[in-house]
Parts: sequence; structure tokens; C-alpha cells
Amino acid sequence: MKEFIYILVSAIIVQTPLFGQQAYPTLSVTKGEVVEIRAALGQGTLFDTSIEKVRAQVDQFVTTGLDVPVPKDLAGGYTHEQHKKNFLILQKAGLLFQITEEEKYAILVKETLFKYREMYPKLERHPSTKSYARGKLFWQCLNDANWLVYVSQAYDCIYDWLSVKERKELNKELFVPMANFLSVETPRFFNRLHNHSTWANAAVGMIGLVMENEDLVQKALYGLPISKEGLKDNDGGSITLKGQKEAGFLAQIDFSFSPDGYYTEGPYYQRYAMYPFLIFALALDNAKPDVKIFEYNNEVLIKGVYALLNQTNAKGEFFPLNDAQKGMSYFSRELKLALSLAFQYGSKDSSLLSLIELQKSVPLIYSGMQAALAIKAGKTVPFVKKSVMLRDGAKGDEGAIGILRADKEGEIDLIMKYAKHGMGHGHFDRLSYSMFYGEQEVLQDYGAARWVNINQKDGGGYLKENKTWAKQTVAHNTVVVDEKSQFRGKVKAADAIAPSSYIFDIDNPNLQVVSAKDTNCYEGVELHRTIVLLKDSSFENPLVLDLFAVNSEEEHDLLLPYYYKGQLMQTNVDFTQSSTLSTMGETDGFQHLWKEAEGKGAEGVTQINWFDKATFFTLTSTTTASDNIITAHIGANDPNFNLRHDPAFFIQKKGKKGRTLFASILETHGNYSRVSEFANNAAGSISNITIIDNTSEYTVVDFTNKQDEEWTFIISNKQHSDDSKHRLTIKNREIKWGGPFTLFKNELEQ
Amino acid sequence: MKEFIYILVSAIIVQTPLFGQQAYPTLSVTKGEVVEIRAALGQGTLFDTSIEKVRAQVDQFVTTGLDVPVPKDLAGGYTHEQHKKNFLILQKAGLLFQITEEEKYAILVKETLFKYREMYPKLERHPSTKSYARGKLFWQCLNDANWLVYVSQAYDCIYDWLSVKERKELNKELFVPMANFLSVETPRFFNRLHNHSTWANAAVGMIGLVMENEDLVQKALYGLPISKEGLKDNDGGSITLKGQKEAGFLAQIDFSFSPDGYYTEGPYYQRYAMYPFLIFALALDNAKPDVKIFEYNNEVLIKGVYALLNQTNAKGEFFPLNDAQKGMSYFSRELKLALSLAFQYGSKDSSLLSLIELQKSVPLIYSGMQAALAIKAGKTVPFVKKSVMLRDGAKGDEGAIGILRADKEGEIDLIMKYAKHGMGHGHFDRLSYSMFYGEQEVLQDYGAARWVNINQKDGGGYLKENKTWAKQTVAHNTVVVDEKSQFRGKVKAADAIAPSSYIFDIDNPNLQVVSAKDTNCYEGVELHRTIVLLKDSSFENPLVLDLFAVNSEEEHDLLLPYYYKGQLMQTNVDFTQSSTLSTMGETDGFQHLWKEAEGKGAEGVTQINWFDKATFFTLTSTTTASDNIITAHIGANDPNFNLRHDPAFFIQKKGKKGRTLFASILETHGNYSRVSEFANNAAGSISNITIIDNTSEYTVVDFTNKQDEEWTFIISNKQHSDDSKHRLTIKNREIKWGGPFTLFKNELEQ
Ligand SMILES: [Ca+2]
Ligand SMILES: [Ca+2]
Ligand SMILES: [Ca+2]
Ligand SMILES: [Mg+2]
Ligand SMILES: [Mg+2]
Ligand SMILES: [Mg+2]
Ligand SMILES: [Mg+2]
Repeated sequence: MKEFIYILVSAIIVQTPLFGQQAYPTLSVTKGEVVEIRAALGQGTLFDTSIEKVRAQVDQFVTTGLDVPVPKDLAGGYTHEQHKKNFLILQKAGLLFQITEEEKYAILVKETLFKYREMYPKLERHPSTKSYARGKLFWQCLNDANWLVYVSQAYDCIYDWLSVKERKELNKELFVPMANFLSVETPRFFNRLHNHSTWANAAVGMIGLVMENEDLVQKALYGLPISKEGLKDNDGGSITLKGQKEAGFLAQIDFSFSPDGYYTEGPYYQRYAMYPFLIFALALDNAKPDVKIFEYNNEVLIKGVYALLNQTNAKGEFFPLNDAQKGMSYFSRELKLALSLAFQYGSKDSSLLSLIELQKSVPLIYSGMQAALAIKAGKTVPFVKKSVMLRDGAKGDEGAIGILRADKEGEIDLIMKYAKHGMGHGHFDRLSYSMFYGEQEVLQDYGAARWVNINQKDGGGYLKENKTWAKQTVAHNTVVVDEKSQFRGKVKAADAIAPSSYIFDIDNPNLQVVSAKDTNCYEGVELHRTIVLLKDSSFENPLVLDLFAVNSEEEHDLLLPYYYKGQLMQTNVDFTQSSTLSTMGETDGFQHLWKEAEGKGAEGVTQINWFDKATFFTLTSTTTASDNIITAHIGANDPNFNLRHDPAFFIQKKGKKGRTLFASILETHGNYSRVSEFANNAAGSISNITIIDNTSEYTVVDFTNKQDEEWTFIISNKQHSDDSKHRLTIKNREIKWGGPFTLFKNELEQ
Repeated sequence: MKEFIYILVSAIIVQTPLFGQQAYPTLSVTKGEVVEIRAALGQGTLFDTSIEKVRAQVDQFVTTGLDVPVPKDLAGGYTHEQHKKNFLILQKAGLLFQITEEEKYAILVKETLFKYREMYPKLERHPSTKSYARGKLFWQCLNDANWLVYVSQAYDCIYDWLSVKERKELNKELFVPMANFLSVETPRFFNRLHNHSTWANAAVGMIGLVMENEDLVQKALYGLPISKEGLKDNDGGSITLKGQKEAGFLAQIDFSFSPDGYYTEGPYYQRYAMYPFLIFALALDNAKPDVKIFEYNNEVLIKGVYALLNQTNAKGEFFPLNDAQKGMSYFSRELKLALSLAFQYGSKDSSLLSLIELQKSVPLIYSGMQAALAIKAGKTVPFVKKSVMLRDGAKGDEGAIGILRADKEGEIDLIMKYAKHGMGHGHFDRLSYSMFYGEQEVLQDYGAARWVNINQKDGGGYLKENKTWAKQTVAHNTVVVDEKSQFRGKVKAADAIAPSSYIFDIDNPNLQVVSAKDTNCYEGVELHRTIVLLKDSSFENPLVLDLFAVNSEEEHDLLLPYYYKGQLMQTNVDFTQSSTLSTMGETDGFQHLWKEAEGKGAEGVTQINWFDKATFFTLTSTTTASDNIITAHIGANDPNFNLRHDPAFFIQKKGKKGRTLFASILETHGNYSRVSEFANNAAGSISNITIIDNTSEYTVVDFTNKQDEEWTFIISNKQHSDDSKHRLTIKNREIKWGGPFTLFKNELEQ
């Protein structure tokens, strides 16, 4: 043991650089931190097991080396995947060299870098012309920036192990050209306010820090001079934003995050963007601590990590808002970095340790070791997700995501979206809601029409159906007016103005309310949706009371979709099944829906009961016989089998003007085992819902269960202050209350 | 501790019966066994934790008692579910009384029995007229028999604790009338050879053993005199079988099980039937050991348990052959009894212990304690499922189920069905195959159209679509001739003759072959299917080579369905999607399929690549441009939403006469993570399949992968003996081999 320590110490001495003003490494881990990490090894922490996992990944390339092919393919193709593999392996090899001091890792990095150094000067832009900003190693600059963010860390780890000549050659022939390529040579890419540019800024800044090139660091932090062009990228979003005055990393932080840490493109892209935000922040904190980057904007980067964690279901999967591939979760590599950093640079919140334990590995950096030691010391406490509103907009005044949760952890997650559109990756989904029960989707948001990195699906990129289906309003659980998408499907108009938060009240865990309005997405139409998560001992699980009010002077056709999962079991609607299936329409996503059956709404309430996995669900909704109930499934006009054939039902109210209310209750109930074959509580409890009043002043609904218990919910449609006082006479009884809503139980016999 | 033992002993003494020739209990546990069980308590075995679980279930009724409502409802309704709950709880209460000696359990049994004693004499047959044999407590006698099988155990456990007067009253007013009702008063129910009657026989025999009523025991073992009627039940099966000469429990065993322990109705019903078979066998072994019931017919009851275990996937779920609800598994209560008994009365096979550990509880009987003690003693070894053929028919000469498995446990389960029809619960599915990869279905058998015990689905019974869809040939992965089901959908004709086993060869784990023929299900058509599970280092996972040969003198239209799961990714077929969807036909199940897209087969091979969960699959099949490829999904003509809307594709060869071969390879390959977003090996390896020859003598196919490696597979279509010798000239090369098939790799460049 003593001998081992001696060797360690002498190794450190030997490697101390003889010149250079900066001590290396300096980006993701510092020289001093490495000493501490080495000293803490071998205690059987999560850090130790993480090293072994990373070794297993990297060791397979130590002898063979890494192939550096001439770029040719799109995502999913060989050259793309190989260059991606290279940057991930190099970054790990660099850290392994620092921690283990085994030169084989440094050699792997060096040899691979010299392969790139050979090839890079000869490369033109990538042959594919799909991107507005074609890269050199990859089809888009974005992936080149990914490469540099990771590889700059590897380079940093071997920088003072290389000879001066080697460094100079790599700097001059590979890294400076690459940094210039990604910045001054591609300004439309570098200077946007967008996740692509965040990667670019981080890449250029990090390699600048390694090379001690202050010019690159300045460009990274503050951007290039702003051009006047109003260009569009190929996602439909603007290249520069209206009135954009600043660019660069700090402007990205200002612009991208709301004060609550919400990222306007939604959690799937926030997850992706958090890596460059946090790794460059870490590098800045190490190399330029005076920037105080983790304290910047009231610690918004750390808040961003919590915002992400709060946008996950019981499996840790991000809510699939906007363009998002379902299944991405806090088990991603980006979130592994994020959790360790949030632990170390936040408030040493030991509830984060429980999620790090679930992740089963830590990044091989100082904060990873600190988290691992804290876990070893038994400091872990559970991470409890709560109901939360995440405001959108740089000032927090442009709508929000409202998340209501039942008090049992993860039992029900209800997500209402009334945030900003989300730029090029946004969906026309205002006032939609989706819901999880435990680990299962109850009402789904479709997510994106894309198979990321699966080559046979159009190179892994966005599919045509992402625009024609996934983004459209009818693909979401929100009212569609006149079979058109919100804002007629125009991103620019949607980006210009957000819905308004009306109520978000979680003071009473048994009566949580989210309510929002939009008057912009359909001309001349006011939408006002209120969702109540109600716990009451009369019901097995919390109820979802949904009041979707539509108000317009002109007549409109209204359609409210429900993208349920599982098998429809029973309904009181007398459906007629179509003998041949036609699409529900020609445009705005309706062309992708096969209409299966239709029936008149029941007089009073329509009830639909379905089953999924082991649980029953019942929707009860006020209807009349002039309403139509439609069942359908996705998959029409899908020549390349790009869409999932998921089911839906719709409540349609045609030719409505004035005030119309969709009043519904969604019950989660019962269970069924395919092994015991016992079914419990398979039918819902709600027997009726009655709209008592729905004026510009108040909306009042009664609902009743099969035991003849009756409740009344009232919401003020004009005053949403907690301090407002209300008085209303209902059925000859005078009701007084404070605050914008109230719920009470009626004794039917008095 | 001494005091405790003293009390125990004195309790035993007090409870020793003062009269009666038989020592109680005597059915599921004997007096002597109870003493041993009590002595082994408290060692922290699985038996101890099982008692605590059962206590928790029963204790909630000790104070309240059990409701005994007047029968009224169908399955899923209150009275049905309550009587079912009652028999399950009473059986447990009886055993708890014996083991714990706490009188509260005996009191619960007694009080509930007297409630039944009050009600039963007043009952007419159940008001529902759905069953051919209406019960009194339930809508069908079957459930009444279930009740008596369980309750006779409870009664046995308290028999000598009751006063003579109480016993006499219960015997006379409840149990003798019930036994008579289920036998002499309902002979069509009692005397069938069918799982229903197995329950009846066991019920009458078990209550006969408790009451020492030898007349009932004789009826149970040997049946009532056979009547001449040729009646049908409401499943479509015959009430008595052609030439049926015997009835009763022993005849059930003779008739129901093949020498391999396969049960002709399939594993779902076998699981159900195993409970009365085994519990009555246990009772007979205890009360009439001279019958040597567990040795009867070469220990066929124990073989039946192994047959069941071998018909499960990696999750322990039974293959959904015939009428079967998916998800039923070896975690069912029937299999808990079965595994302990197979351990105790079989060969003390310690691999069964590993499954008992998974079940997490043992039955509260002697064999449950023996298994628990063996587990505690560390005797558990893994249960390894192997490839196996389970022959059907009382003599084992009426077809079989052929199960091929890859050598990694559970990696691939391939099930080919060439067994008997399976009576009223059979499907017209000859020569179909289904496949699992790990825990996922790759090619599915639909199972039954039924939601067992879910009231809103037609009282939990079989749905109309079970007959119009689930049983039909087109619902299975087998060739459909002229869009008609096998045997024109007639059960009687199908029951009369089984397919023929041709080859089942698993000598070489890298080249496993199952092959069977049928010349009866379509007039004038010979079907011969050969499935090869091939492991070769050139392929990531075992390949499935499928040669489906059809031979007929007349022209026929042939259609081969593939009920895949997941998302179609890519194909070389130029599909045209229908702009309105129509059904694929009018009858034989085709009326339930929506046709989505159609294209001409590719010249050479058609390839279809799909993705499910985390794995890719590719089917490569020989086609010409005169073939049609069709995609479809289930759900047409389904007014009550009874069907799952699962996808399928079809290979159609129209107007074929002479010898036609469907030659296909199914590859399982690659993986994709939605968290890392890495896709590996997403495209298949097979590039071509060529039919070299397909005569009455030999079928010869070549197949090639993308590395230009080539293999040839040859099967003799006439000689299936291992001793046969063959010589064939292919491409000017003479090939000689022994046995009915051979596979070799060609060097393309020689
Ligand atoms: Ca619950
Ligand atoms: Ca053999
Ligand atoms: Ca494998
Ligand atoms: Mg969406
Ligand atoms: Mg409040
Ligand atoms: Mg079937
Ligand atoms: Mg052989």
C-alpha cells in the first residue's frame, strides 16, 4: 500500500508541466481535484464501480484504436455513428488517464486526435445538404459541436502529457480551424439563441479554455456581432429572434431559461441542452471562477436541473412535450452530469443522491466523487416530486407548464401545457393535458414522429409526419376549433404570444387547481381550461375534473380528443361502426386519423370505460344528443409506416356560439389480474355531471356518484386573486367563499 | 417455550375425535402431517411467510363474517364474485385452523357453512339460462363444483371440531344435496370427458371422502352409467365423446392427458384443470393410498405439471394456444399447488424449488412445508426449459406441440402447433407457429376474445368474436387456403383427426428442426411445414428458417399471415396505402381485418423489418411480383370494441396448384435504447433466399447473408427416419447425408 502511494506521488511529480501558465486539466476536472479523487478511490463507492464500467467501454479500443472514417453518412449510418462513438470514448479515455494514470488511455486519445488532424484539413462541408448549417464530420454543425464539447475534455486531460510540438500541431491544424469553422465561418449557426448554438458556444469556449485562446472564449461567452438577416432554419424556427441584441453563452442562459429553470423547447431538448450548459459552466467555474457562472441569474442553471426532474413520470421519463422521443429519461448521460453538478454546486441536496443511486453510475469528475462519497456516508434521502408550476419566458410571464400530482409519489402526474410555443420544436398544443398513473400513460401526448438515430427511418431525422401529424392540434388532448390547428399551424404567430396562467393553486393537496386562458390561437375564440385534481375518500383514486370553456361570437365546430391507451371496455354511446374507414379530414392532422365509429352523445353524460395494463379508467362528460362521439385511430396517409396506430375518442360539438363548456371527470379505478382473474371496481363511480351555470362571471358544475353523493365546483371566470370574495345563489342557497374557486359537498336530503 | 409446547400438545389431545373411523383432517393435509407442520413452524421458511400472507387475507373476515347472498349475477357481478371469494377464504381458514389451532378460523368456516345450509335447500337453478348445466350458487355447475372442491377442504379441517349434530345437519342439508345436484341431478355435466366434469368428479369425490360416503367416492372415480345422448354443450364441443365408454375421475386422467402430460385443451385449460386433478389426487393419496393415484398411468399427473411448465415463456406465462387469456402464468394459485405436489410426489426435483421461490409462497399443506424446508436447506437449482415435443392423444400418436428453444434460457421460444384440435376450446390453427424473444411476443397467437370475469365484457364470458375471429385460421400464423378456415370451421371434423408429426429433432442444439404435415384440414391440399431454429456465429441471434409447403392438384389461393408486434420500420415492397379501408373479406375471420396497404412482392425476396420494445426483427421471404404483400390490422366488424387492434402482414400467393413453397427466414437482431439513442445492427443480415428444388422427394433452399456467406438446407419430404440415407446432386455437386435433413455452408468461391 505504501509503495502504491509512493508511485502515485512520484507519478504526479513527473507529470507536472514545466511551462504554461495554466495547470491541466482544467475543464471538467482540475489538477487539485484529480489528486483528491485518486485519494478517495478504492472505498467501494459508486465512483469505483463507475470507473470499472467506463474502463470496460474504453478498454476494447485501446489495442484496436478508433476508426476515423471520411464523413459520408446521415445519423444511423456508419461514419456518423463512428464519429459519435469516438467523441464519447475519447472523453472517457481522457478522464481515465487522469484518474488511473495509465498511459494507454492518453495514447488512445493522442492517436485518435492525430487521425483527425490528418483528415480534417482536407474536409469540405458534409455531402448531405439537409441542414441549414452543414458540418464537416457530420451532416450538421450541431454534431460537430457535440464532438468538440466532448473531445475538448479529452484534449484537456492529455494536454500537458503531450509534447509542445504535438500540442501546437493539434491546435493549429485541428482545433483552431474547427473552432473557427463552428463560429466565424458559420455565424448563422453560432449566433442563434437556440440549443444548437449553445453547443457551438460551449464547444468553442471549451477548446478556447484548453488552448488558452481568450479570443475564442470571448466569442463563446458573448457571441459574434449580430447580423441583420431574418433567416429560417430547417425546423421552421427563426435563425435570429425578433429584437435579438445579444448572442453567446450568457445570452443563451438569459434567453433559454425562465426564472423557474424551464426551457422553452421543453424537457426533451432541455435534457439535450443541459449538457453543454453545464459542462461549459463547470469549465468556466474551474478556469474562470470570477464569472460565478453557477450563481448567474439566481442560479438558473441549477434550477434548470430541478425543472427537468420535475418534468418526469414515475419511470423518470420526461413528459413528451413538443418534439420529444418518448422514453428519454433522467437515466441519460446528460442527466448523470446534471445531478452530480446540481448536488455539488447547488445546496448539496441529499435527495438528489437517491436519483444518482438509481442511475447506478456517476461521472468521473470531482462532483461525481463527492456524490458517491455522500451516498457511501448514508446521506441519501428520497426525492419527492411535488405539484409545481414551471413558468415560461425569460421573465416568467409567458405562460407555464402546470403539473399536478397526487400525494402518493408518482401515483398521478397531470401535465397541462400553457407555455410558450417552443420555437421550431413546438407543437400546437395549447391547453392540452396529459396524464400518467404510476408508470403508465393514461392520456398521452404523441411526442415526435421520429426514430432518433435509426437509419431506416429517414436517417433518424424528423419524419414528414412530425409536421403533418405530431405537431398538429388534433394530435393533442385539447379543443380543436373548425378542424384547424391553432394559429393555422404557423410557428411565427404561435411563437409571438403565450397563453395566460389563470390559477395554479396547490395549497390544499386534496383540491389542486390549474387554470389557463388563451385568446390568440383561434381568432375570435376564447379558450379557458380548468383542471382540478380532487382527492376524496368517496373515490378510490383522485378524480380529474376538467372544465374546458369555449367562448365565441361566431359559430364554430369544436372537437375534444382523448388519446387513451388500452382497450375500450364499455360505453353508453350507441356507436355505429363504419363499414369502410375514411379519414377524419384532409388537413391539419385529420388526414392521419381513421374514423372507426360514431354515435350521438348520450343525453346528460356520455361515459366511456377503458382498461389498460391492470387498471380501469372512466371518462364521464356532459353531452346532448346533438353532440357526436367518434372513435378513431392514427395511421391514415402514412405510406412509410411512420406513425403509431394509437387509438382515440373524440367529443364533437358542432355549430356552437356563445359559451360552450366541456365538463368531464376522469376516474382511475379498480384493478384486474390476468393471473388471479379477479376484477375489482371495474366500473366507475361517477353517475352524473350537471352544468348549473356557465356565464362570463362563473362556471358552476355539480357531479354525483352512484351512492348519490353530490358535489358542486364553482370557479370565477373573471377574478383569479386569492383575495377575491364571492357570493352566488345556487338552487336557492346562497354560497359565499374567498378565492377564485370552491368545492363543496351537497347534502341532497336536507 | 416449554409452556407453549405443553399447550400445543394438550390442544391436540382435546381435539382428538372421540368417534368416527377416519382421522381428520384427511383431504389436503392429514392429522399426522399437521403435527409435523406445526413442529417445523417458526424457522423463517417460505411456509412461515405464506401463513402470514394467508392470515392477512382471512383475518379481515373473522369479525365481519362472509356474506352469503342469494345467487343472481354472472361472472364479474356481486353474488358471483362473493361466492367465489367465500370458497377461497374458507379453504384458507380451514388450513389456518389446523395449523394455528386458533378457533376463530373454525368459527368462520362453521358460521359461513350454516349460512349456506340455510340458503341452499331453497335454491332453484340459477336464473341465467346461458349454461347447458345451470348451477345453483353460480350460473353454471362448473362454478358450483369449484366451490365444493375448495369448501370440502375447509369442511374437512373442522369436521371433528364440529359436534356430531352439526356435522349431520351440514351433511344432510347442504353437502349431500349439493353432491347429488352436481352428479345424478346433472348427469350431462358430471359424466363428460372435459375439464368441467373433472371439477365435478373431484368435488363429489372430495366431499364423499370427508363424509365417508363411499357411494359418492365411487361415482367420482368411475362416473354414472353412460347415457346414449349425443348432446352439444355451449362451447360447441360434444357432451359425450364418440365411443365414450367410461366416465369419472380415472377416465378423465386416461382421456385428458397424453403420455407426455399434454392436455388436449391446451395449457390455459390444463392449468385450470390441474387444480381438481391434483387436489383430488392428494385427497385420494391420503384417504385411499391403495389407489396409488400419483403413480397412475406412468405418473401422468406429475408429467402434466412439467408439460405445463414447459409451455411457458420467460415470464412464466402459458403459451396462449386455443382459448386462452394471455397473461395467465405459473404464478396462478393452481400452479402453486402443482409445484409443491410435483416436488413431493415426483422425484423431489430441486429445480422446481427455483420456481417455487419465484412464486413467493407455498400452499399451507405438507408438501408446501417440505418444499419450503428444502429451499431453506439451500437445495434450489435453476429450472432450465429445454426444447421439447409434447405429444397429444391418449396414446401419444395424435400430433403434438413442438417447442424449440435457443440455448440461452428463455431467449427464444418457438412453438409450433400440430396437436389435436382441442375440442370446444380448440382453434383452427394447424401448423401455426408463434414465437417469444425473452419476455416479448415476436409472432403472436391472438389467444381468446374474452375478458375473464370482467363484467362489462358480456359477463366475463366468451365474446362473439371468439368464434368469429380468435378461433379462425386467419387469426393464426399459418397458411389460409381460399380464405376459408381449416375444416370450414367445423369442430367435429377437426376433432376427428390430428396432423402428423414428421420430424422433431433437437440432437444438435445449433440445428433444431420441427416438421409436421396435415392432409385433412383442407380437402385435396397437403400442408407440410418445417421450422428450423439455427444458431450460427455469423448471426447475432438464432435464425428461424420456415419452409411452408403446400401441394394440391387444384388451384388455390394461399395466404400466410404474420401477427407481428411493434412498428413496421422498412420494407422493399412498394406499398400503396388504401385511401379508405375495407375489410379483407366477409367470413372466416377476414371480416375482422382492415386492409391497410398492398404491394406486389419483390422479385426474389420480400423483406420486412420491424421494431418492438428494444429489438429489431426482419422477415425475408421468397416472392415474385405475382405475389401480393398486404398489411392490415384487427378491429373491423367489432361493434362492442371487443378486439385488440393488433397489426399483421400477409404474403399472398393466388391461383397456385402443384407444389408451392413459402420459404422465409425470421431474424432477431440489434437493439435500440431510447435513453442512449444508440441503434445497433438495426438492419437484418440475410440478403437472399433461393428455392433450389421443391419436389415430392426433396425441398432444397439456399440462403445468403450480406457478407456473401451461403448456406443450403435440404429436407427429405418422404423419408423422415434418422436412419434414412440420401444422395442428391445440387449445382453439379453431389451431396450425401444421413437422416431426413441437412444443412451445410457453401463456399461460393471454390
Ligand atoms: Ca390508488
Ligand atoms: Ca434424432
Ligand atoms: Ca441476443
Ligand atoms: Mg405534442
Ligand atoms: Mg390558494
Ligand atoms: Mg389461437
Ligand atoms: Mg438427427
